[in-house]
Amino acid sequence: MFVDLPLDELREYRPAIARPDDFAEFWTSELAAARQFDPPAEFRPIDTPLAGIDVFDVTFPGYGGHPIRGWLLLPRQMAADAPVVVEFVGYNGGRGDPLEWLLWAGTGHPHFVMDNRGQGGGWRGADTADPADPGEPSSNGFLTKGIADPHRHYYVRLYVDAARAVDAVLAHGASAGRAVVTTGASQGGALALAAASLHDRVAVVLPDVPFLSHPVRAVQITDAKPYGELAEYCAVYPDRIERVFHTLSYFDVANHATRIRKPALFSVGLIDEITPPSTVFAAYNRISGERPKEIIPYPFTGHQGGGIRQHREKLRFLARLDLTA
Amino acid sequence: MFVDLPLDELREYRPAIARPDDFAEFWTSELAAARQFDPPAEFRPIDTPLAGIDVFDVTFPGYGGHPIRGWLLLPRQMAADAPVVVEFVGYNGGRGDPLEWLLWAGTGHPHFVMDNRGQGGGWRGADTADPADPGEPSSNGFLTKGIADPHRHYYVRLYVDAARAVDAVLAHGASAGRAVVTTGASQGGALALAAASLHDRVAVVLPDVPFLSHPVRAVQITDAKPYGELAEYCAVYPDRIERVFHTLSYFDVANHATRIRKPALFSVGLIDEITPPSTVFAAYNRISGERPKEIIPYPFTGHQGGGIRQHREKLRFLARLDLTA
Amino acid sequence: MFVDLPLDELREYRPAIARPDDFAEFWTSELAAARQFDPPAEFRPIDTPLAGIDVFDVTFPGYGGHPIRGWLLLPRQMAADAPVVVEFVGYNGGRGDPLEWLLWAGTGHPHFVMDNRGQGGGWRGADTADPADPGEPSSNGFLTKGIADPHRHYYVRLYVDAARAVDAVLAHGASAGRAVVTTGASQGGALALAAASLHDRVAVVLPDVPFLSHPVRAVQITDAKPYGELAEYCAVYPDRIERVFHTLSYFDVANHATRIRKPALFSVGLIDEITPPSTVFAAYNRISGERPKEIIPYPFTGHQGGGIRQHREKLRFLARLDLTA
Amino acid sequence: MFVDLPLDELREYRPAIARPDDFAEFWTSELAAARQFDPPAEFRPIDTPLAGIDVFDVTFPGYGGHPIRGWLLLPRQMAADAPVVVEFVGYNGGRGDPLEWLLWAGTGHPHFVMDNRGQGGGWRGADTADPADPGEPSSNGFLTKGIADPHRHYYVRLYVDAARAVDAVLAHGASAGRAVVTTGASQGGALALAAASLHDRVAVVLPDVPFLSHPVRAVQITDAKPYGELAEYCAVYPDRIERVFHTLSYFDVANHATRIRKPALFSVGLIDEITPPSTVFAAYNRISGERPKEIIPYPFTGHQGGGIRQHREKLRFLARLDLTA
Amino acid sequence: MFVDLPLDELREYRPAIARPDDFAEFWTSELAAARQFDPPAEFRPIDTPLAGIDVFDVTFPGYGGHPIRGWLLLPRQMAADAPVVVEFVGYNGGRGDPLEWLLWAGTGHPHFVMDNRGQGGGWRGADTADPADPGEPSSNGFLTKGIADPHRHYYVRLYVDAARAVDAVLAHGASAGRAVVTTGASQGGALALAAASLHDRVAVVLPDVPFLSHPVRAVQITDAKPYGELAEYCAVYPDRIERVFHTLSYFDVANHATRIRKPALFSVGLIDEITPPSTVFAAYNRISGERPKEIIPYPFTGHQGGGIRQHREKLRFLARLDLTA
Amino acid sequence: MFVDLPLDELREYRPAIARPDDFAEFWTSELAAARQFDPPAEFRPIDTPLAGIDVFDVTFPGYGGHPIRGWLLLPRQMAADAPVVVEFVGYNGGRGDPLEWLLWAGTGHPHFVMDNRGQGGGWRGADTADPADPGEPSSNGFLTKGIADPHRHYYVRLYVDAARAVDAVLAHGASAGRAVVTTGASQGGALALAAASLHDRVAVVLPDVPFLSHPVRAVQITDAKPYGELAEYCAVYPDRIERVFHTLSYFDVANHATRIRKPALFSVGLIDEITPPSTVFAAYNRISGERPKEIIPYPFTGHQGGGIRQHREKLRFLARLDLTA
Repeated sequence: MFVDLPLDELREYRPAIARPDDFAEFWTSELAAARQFDPPAEFRPIDTPLAGIDVFDVTFPGYGGHPIRGWLLLPRQMAADAPVVVEFVGYNGGRGDPLEWLLWAGTGHPHFVMDNRGQGGGWRGADTADPADPGEPSSNGFLTKGIADPHRHYYVRLYVDAARAVDAVLAHGASAGRAVVTTGASQGGALALAAASLHDRVAVVLPDVPFLSHPVRAVQITDAKPYGELAEYCAVYPDRIERVFHTLSYFDVANHATRIRKPALFSVGLIDEITPPSTVFAAYNRISGERPKEIIPYPFTGHQGGGIRQHREKLRFLARLDLTA
Repeated sequence: MFVDLPLDELREYRPAIARPDDFAEFWTSELAAARQFDPPAEFRPIDTPLAGIDVFDVTFPGYGGHPIRGWLLLPRQMAADAPVVVEFVGYNGGRGDPLEWLLWAGTGHPHFVMDNRGQGGGWRGADTADPADPGEPSSNGFLTKGIADPHRHYYVRLYVDAARAVDAVLAHGASAGRAVVTTGASQGGALALAAASLHDRVAVVLPDVPFLSHPVRAVQITDAKPYGELAEYCAVYPDRIERVFHTLSYFDVANHATRIRKPALFSVGLIDEITPPSTVFAAYNRISGERPKEIIPYPFTGHQGGGIRQHREKLRFLARLDLTA
Repeated sequence: MFVDLPLDELREYRPAIARPDDFAEFWTSELAAARQFDPPAEFRPIDTPLAGIDVFDVTFPGYGGHPIRGWLLLPRQMAADAPVVVEFVGYNGGRGDPLEWLLWAGTGHPHFVMDNRGQGGGWRGADTADPADPGEPSSNGFLTKGIADPHRHYYVRLYVDAARAVDAVLAHGASAGRAVVTTGASQGGALALAAASLHDRVAVVLPDVPFLSHPVRAVQITDAKPYGELAEYCAVYPDRIERVFHTLSYFDVANHATRIRKPALFSVGLIDEITPPSTVFAAYNRISGERPKEIIPYPFTGHQGGGIRQHREKLRFLARLDLTA
Repeated sequence: MFVDLPLDELREYRPAIARPDDFAEFWTSELAAARQFDPPAEFRPIDTPLAGIDVFDVTFPGYGGHPIRGWLLLPRQMAADAPVVVEFVGYNGGRGDPLEWLLWAGTGHPHFVMDNRGQGGGWRGADTADPADPGEPSSNGFLTKGIADPHRHYYVRLYVDAARAVDAVLAHGASAGRAVVTTGASQGGALALAAASLHDRVAVVLPDVPFLSHPVRAVQITDAKPYGELAEYCAVYPDRIERVFHTLSYFDVANHATRIRKPALFSVGLIDEITPPSTVFAAYNRISGERPKEIIPYPFTGHQGGGIRQHREKLRFLARLDLTA
Repeated sequence: MFVDLPLDELREYRPAIARPDDFAEFWTSELAAARQFDPPAEFRPIDTPLAGIDVFDVTFPGYGGHPIRGWLLLPRQMAADAPVVVEFVGYNGGRGDPLEWLLWAGTGHPHFVMDNRGQGGGWRGADTADPADPGEPSSNGFLTKGIADPHRHYYVRLYVDAARAVDAVLAHGASAGRAVVTTGASQGGALALAAASLHDRVAVVLPDVPFLSHPVRAVQITDAKPYGELAEYCAVYPDRIERVFHTLSYFDVANHATRIRKPALFSVGLIDEITPPSTVFAAYNRISGERPKEIIPYPFTGHQGGGIRQHREKLRFLARLDLTA
Repeated sequence: MFVDLPLDELREYRPAIARPDDFAEFWTSELAAARQFDPPAEFRPIDTPLAGIDVFDVTFPGYGGHPIRGWLLLPRQMAADAPVVVEFVGYNGGRGDPLEWLLWAGTGHPHFVMDNRGQGGGWRGADTADPADPGEPSSNGFLTKGIADPHRHYYVRLYVDAARAVDAVLAHGASAGRAVVTTGASQGGALALAAASLHDRVAVVLPDVPFLSHPVRAVQITDAKPYGELAEYCAVYPDRIERVFHTLSYFDVANHATRIRKPALFSVGLIDEITPPSTVFAAYNRISGERPKEIIPYPFTGHQGGGIRQHREKLRFLARLDLTA
């Protein structure tokens, strides 16, 4: 049975985490480079059997200007102040079918779901390629792709895509006057935090069981995939261990958390072996500032998180904020 | 790796399956007894964050008149001829939260979800008790509860509940002029078939990976739960094996299938170890008559079935039928 | 590999454990209610192939007056001062066949084995039903049945049965002038302790690897069943966690242990993942008083415990006590 | 899930099994050699807490005259015609503690339990060494010890011990005028069959789930230990495969079965992966002659076999035979 | 336990396998395209602690002219007629360290080891990138990369690299007058066969437990990786199943085998779950012609194959051929 | 996931470990006894396909004068000062085929590989019997053979063999003027340390992931075999636990380490569950003296250790020593 720290220690868990000196510059320059590519995002309406929700097949320019796909779901009835929700998908899943995304639109929110480049082979299909991978030897999966250099790592592309997804959403008329909220589970939670760190217009972040937080700790307490990809790679290349974790420090959401001064609602499963609770708290405890932050622990729950309960927690959390954009 | 028969043999799989001589009388009399209890079903509107869907907390009299719960979701916009969909839930789950049930209402159908009495402890919560279990020694779970006597077996109560759920739905004004469709996965698929067998007003049945079909075969090729409960019980009481399978023959949906002369769309996972494909085909191949029937095989899929793809198959299948009630 | 605390820490393990204020009243009133039902216990002699042991099929009124079964084995040769041994059976087993119970009678003791109501589906058959379960949603198994209310929980019935079993045994002539000893392993150990707590006439308690001790700790270090049933239930109903453990506090044998001022011999397996050693010591360390108490640790043994070695320890332990009733 | 042939095919399963030409000579000569060593068996009475059963610690000369241990349990009350039961123990267990052997003596039979030389490290302790092993490379365990030569194989010693155990029992006065029955489970079942094949005075054989039957088939359908030891050895030494199975053909109880013209009662678990049912039937179907033979299949049972039920079957089977010695 | 067909059926296993009509054209054109890129292979001598073997770090132009790495080991003492051995590496391994490759050079053969582009993250490191992957959604691993189109599939690049490796080796002076032999295990065996199919100058092929043979069968009997990557992908995209297997038919070594009219020595493990024996025989049984061919079955061996035994079989097999180039 | 102590605690891990008072006398006397048997070691040249390496099939007198086998590989080109390497093999493997041992001879070292008596059934074949085992009950495997008495324990024979292997090697002319280095992995590492402790002429020791170090700790944190054999035995015989660990204290390489005043290079895998890192450091931290010692930790590596990387570390380590014999 997987056991991490007890809840009272988790609440105080504040490990030292290395952050590269050029962290801010790195991201400023990567984002600037991506924003050079600026064909307008394309919103193509599609036919669905959905009553009361309009769906758009979106293509927007992500990292390197590569075409990234997404779904935009617009309920025909929306409160004027309902924030736009930008959602990111977990590891090796994609945007799938718009019929799988009824929850936010069903509760009256414009909802954008970003596809994950190159992913989609694991459980929910995708429609976006990652044409820029250097193809260097890596363990199976995405975590060690291009690990030698943060500028070529897989996640620099995916994080930039996430920030550009916010740009794309803001370009649509339905966003006018609305606050932007990011959310997602696991890798989707990491992207929600990354977008909140990288994009000024994100007003609230709602990550569930976020991945890519304090990986140095993760690999010491679990060998479950995807963190296990790191262990696999480091077993083959023990002389590259330092470099691996240096590259990852640019993507560590615990490092991004220190830049986030926005309302935040996390969820965490206390027996989660995929994204162990101490790694989640490592990020949560570094979210700063006076704005409300909250974390909902699920004591007997693993990586599946809080499900529909947590969705209701999010609605409750948003309801008490003043979210006029 | 679980391997059952190859697809071409599955298509022709027609095993001999014992059906008790008093099968029809058994069910006629059980249903008649249940219909003695007739306080009208109660539809209590509840507040939800859903835009465009009205939700009712339903209580209706099931087997023994026991109060059975359910959700009724009514989209504010429905086509006049959209059939009512009555959905049943899988083993040891319950009706959960209405926010988990947006797919049918989201596509414009009145949608009723029946709670499972006594279940709900495994994965999705329930609100309905099963006050009538005789409490005889059984293996953990529901499959061997009251196994000594079909009149006292757990599933006589649940099957009668399913038929009574159709009665309840028909009692609501929104059903007027609409056809009734039953659906569900696994145990939910068994209940969908049972309701179609037991209730005249069910017009179409859409079972996914149905459970409780040809259990004699199931226990010979898999020990996965819930069928494994039978093996566990029979290991403790080897002298009761014959009685066990006699009782189950009243609930075997392959026996119910021979009574169903209605359009039917099945799905089946060809590597499904929970409800092995040969057991599913055993039922499908006994659905009779000239009305359209179809089965969608998912070759590399287990018990999770076809997901949203299968939902689209169901919409397609319904669209080509003439379903004016 | 399952590792709990090291032996020297176990010997000092004295966690704070909540005991409800009305603990004593609760049990006084439950027992009093059960003793209203008082048809005399019935002892029906049966034929067996056993040479030198007379066997009786016993029916006695348990909780709610429900008929509870048991075996009474009377060796034809018994020392006048040999105590009566009342034995309880582990989780989901029953009294089985009298031929399975030769050890105590074979060593000259009157021996009573109580059947477990509703259990018997897991490994050794039973003949006793539990007709009173409210049938509320619970995880598979017995630990969360009726968990919402200690008065309706499964174990209130089983614990009361255990105390009433002592009443039944005392009603038989063979008990005249003999001390009563309770014993059993796992759930049987819990019942042995419960009977010792609830019934004045129990003179010695000999629990092996007792279950139902300090469950709050158990669920934090193991997910093995049956404790795992709690985790399963709490994962589905996270909002009921507090209530679950409040109900269990009435059945926690660590709470019963504080009332036991009788000689006690425990056994414990130091790699036992089913009833982890720290939970066993939590109860043992709360047995009070000046009477001898002892615990035999088996360092490389799991839940199977000490087997025949422990039986010899029990004979040794009893031999040195003065047990004239 | 382990699946062997269905029951109706098992009943007709009669594979060709190679039997060496010198099979009879081999055993005649090995037994003759062992009978050279003839210090009388020693029966040392020991103190036990058992009421009504006298226990003797036995030492008798086995293969090579090596001292083999056993327990003799004599109930003080025995019917004059109750046969003597000689019991053999399963793989890597030993005779343990006499208190573990109450079933046959408790039902009025003289009962002898033979210790297994060199075994006893797996689950029940032993007191007998195997001083004659040549120590050649083998896989862990006993099945490939000395596999190069049937005269030096571990099982030539254990089988000869089994036949000599019958000699030893017959040397005790309590056996006078009594028939001899052999029994045991798994390896104990193989030894029961071997003793019946090798010793004229064995009148009835009652093997449960016997091991060492048709190993060529066993290794093709299971890799569970102990048969898996063969696969392990043959993987290291693929050029010795033929020799391995030639050596085993002397110990294959399917070959011994053809010599057994005595009443026989087998039991078999139809999901037994340790001694797969087809290997058990391979032996059973070769038991010859007009005397009654019977096999009890347990459909949902693995290697644990029929337990106390099967003990009652044995008592029933013996009762209908005329067993005056 | 994994069980495929018995050996006698394997020897006759000749399934129908689809081969695309343009199979020959496809490969002719792909090879021609690759041979456009022709900077000479580079052989850079490196220092090693090896006594008696000169080692060269090789870079040669593979598919798309991409730089592919390899090791060339030249023993200082070589028989004039010792063939050159070109070896390929298994799935997700790379060329590693030259000290890992002493067997062929140690037995007097020039030995070339090709690195696997993009692989090397699983167990033995690599130094070669795969810069041309289109990055489309795929399951983790290499088998479904670019699966939509054989011209873009990962294995078109790796197979072309293998043929080009033979070109590179022939460009070195040490190859003058020597025959070329290809070998390798698993994926390395597939590449050895592919090179033999695609390159005229390969005189002998020595594949061990080859991968990528008759994948349609493989996915029906095993879910072990890497074949399991296909099942994973097809579970996500059931509508692409036909396309997947069409693409793979260009790489199926059973299709390449029909073009190989050269001496061939295979090895196969009869309990190999990674490359099941029937898939290996499917290729072996299609090797045509009068030249000697042989397959060594290892009955109790899985994917690890015959190890050093098989190396000796290869030396024996080569010794009896007349291999003057 | 297996987790032992973190690296910084491992570096300081110095547990108290009991060493018997007669440790030195025990080994002095055992070695002296073995050296009575002194037929000269026999070096029989054999034919191999190896170019540039002469191979000898060696037989030398080990413990009790029993004939122990080995391979001696002599490269035709050796530096005058290249030390002789004596290598020992891991648990249940043997010397195998000389073609498996090219690394040390390939890098210019005389290389001797000792066979393991009685082992060889697990993964690499052996040719040496252990004719002296007393055959007492033990768990499967070698660790508890003769555990009652250090003079009869399996490892007294294997350790003496290891010291005598050094004698044998020194008897060959090729050793003249060369230093002796011992090495090996797991059990081979234990033997390398034992030989360094027991034999004066061993100049350097290079153990990888050594077994048999601080077993008291090992059994508390892992149940992986072979340490798990101890737990298995102690579970059957709990009253012998103290004796078991007393016997092992003579073989505990942490006790031998305190006698080693020679250069030493260890390797350790930080997630090694077979020989947990704390047990390895327990030995390493007790190597004494001023001569260089070093340990290479592999953070993400289990029992497979550092592979070829570690071989290069050994060459580096040897190169900086002054090893003229």
